[in-house]
Amino acid sequence: MNDRLAVVLIDTRNPLNIGAAARAMSNFGFFDLRLVDPYDVAFEEAVSAVGAQELMRDARVFPTVAEAVADCSLVVGATGLGHRVFQHRLYRLERGARLLRRHLASARAALLFGSEKFGLSNEDSSQCHWLAHIPTRAEHDSMNLAQAVAICLYELVRTPGEARREPLATDRATGADLERLAGLLEEVLQSCGHTDYTKTLGADVKTHQLIRRLSLSSRDASIWSGMLRQILWALRRQA
Amino acid sequence: MNDRLAVVLIDTRNPLNIGAAARAMSNFGFFDLRLVDPYDVAFEEAVSAVGAQELMRDARVFPTVAEAVADCSLVVGATGLGHRVFQHRLYRLERGARLLRRHLASARAALLFGSEKFGLSNEDSSQCHWLAHIPTRAEHDSMNLAQAVAICLYELVRTPGEARREPLATDRATGADLERLAGLLEEVLQSCGHTDYTKTLGADVKTHQLIRRLSLSSRDASIWSGMLRQILWALRRQA
Repeated sequence: MNDRLAVVLIDTRNPLNIGAAARAMSNFGFFDLRLVDPYDVAFEEAVSAVGAQELMRDARVFPTVAEAVADCSLVVGATGLGHRVFQHRLYRLERGARLLRRHLASARAALLFGSEKFGLSNEDSSQCHWLAHIPTRAEHDSMNLAQAVAICLYELVRTPGEARREPLATDRATGADLERLAGLLEEVLQSCGHTDYTKTLGADVKTHQLIRRLSLSSRDASIWSGMLRQILWALRRQA
Repeated sequence: MNDRLAVVLIDTRNPLNIGAAARAMSNFGFFDLRLVDPYDVAFEEAVSAVGAQELMRDARVFPTVAEAVADCSLVVGATGLGHRVFQHRLYRLERGARLLRRHLASARAALLFGSEKFGLSNEDSSQCHWLAHIPTRAEHDSMNLAQAVAICLYELVRTPGEARREPLATDRATGADLERLAGLLEEVLQSCGHTDYTKTLGADVKTHQLIRRLSLSSRDASIWSGMLRQILWALRRQA
C-alpha cells in the first residue's frame, strides 16, 4: 500500500517543514515525496532531515501540481476547516483515510498539502477528487504542516486489530506463580499477626483476588515472592 | 475529557518543540501543559508559539516528574520501540489511547514525553503505569517530539462515528434532479445522433446508472442540466 502513495508538498516555504515532513514519512514507511515549486533554498536545506536523508535525495520537484499527480488516479487534498472549498466533498480524516487506503490497495494516489501560510489554493484543490480535514477545534484549525503530514500518515497505518494483540501475553504470571505468591502473603500476614485481616471471613479468597488484581508479569511475581520469603524469614527469626 | 489530561514535557531542549507541542494541544483542545526542568531559555522562546500564546502563558514548570504528576491517578509514558523498558506494559497507541480515554472520562491523567535526544529515561518511566508507542517502522522509530504529541492527542480525539456522519448528505442531488438530468442527456444523445449508444439495448437504464455513478451534489446537477440544455438548444438550431 505505502509505495503507491505520493506525498505532495506545494509551495513549501520553510526547509525545516520539508525535513520534518520527510522524517514523518520515513517513520511511517512512505518514501515518495514530491515537491511543487518549493523555495530553492528551502529544498536544499531540508536534505539534512533527521533519519530521512535518502528520502530527501529521492524527492522529485515538479513545476505544477498537475505534473506532480499525473500518474495518480486519486488525488486527495488535506485542508483545515477554515479553507473549506465548497465545490468539493470534504471528509473527516478518519473516514477519508479509509477511502484512501481502499484506493491504495490497487492503485496510485496523491495526498496534497498546501503552503504553511495559505494551505491549499483553489487552483491546487481543483486537482483533487475530494478533501480531507483533521478534526481540530474549529477555533484553532491551523496546524503545523509537518504535524498534519504526520497525522495523515499515522491514520493511514494505524491498525487497531494489531494493537489488540499487544502487549504479548507471554510474560504474564501463571496460575502457579500467583498461588505461590498468595500462599506466601497469607503466611506473612499470619506471622506478623495482622488480625484485622485474618479474622475476616473468606480471607483466603480475598488474598487470591488481591494478588490477581495486580496483573503481574512472571518476573514481577518472582520478585514479590522473593521479598515475601525474606520478610517471612525475618519475622520467624524474631519470633 | 480534555481538561483532565496534563501533557508533560520532560527536559525539553528546543523551544521550537515546546511551541509546536503547545500548538498541537490547542489544535485538539488540550490546555494543561506542564514542563519538567526545561532549559530556561527554551521555555521563554516558546511563549510565542503560533496560536498558543495563552496556553504557553498558563504552562506550569515543575522540578521533578513526581511533582508534575502528583494530582494524576494514571500516568502514561509515550515512547519509541527502541526505548522499550521491559518492566512496563507497552501498548500500541491505538489501544493505549482507548484505555487513557476511559480513565479520562472520570479522573485526571498525565501523558509524558521525554527529551528530544533520549526520550523517557528509566527514572521518568518509573512514574508511569504503562507506556504507549506510536506504530512507526522499527527501522526508524525516532519521531519529532511535537509530531509525537500531535499524533497522541489526535488519537485521543478521533471519532470515527462522527466521521461517518460527514459530509452532510443534505447537499446531494435528489432523484428528481437526476431524472431530469438523465432525460436531458438522452435528448442530447439522440439529437447528435450518437448511434452506437442509442442502438444499444437498455440504453435508458445505462444513462440513469451513468448519472448516478457521478454522485452529484444538487448544485452540480443543476450546473450539468444547464450545460445540457444549452447543448440541446445549439444542436436543434443546427438541425
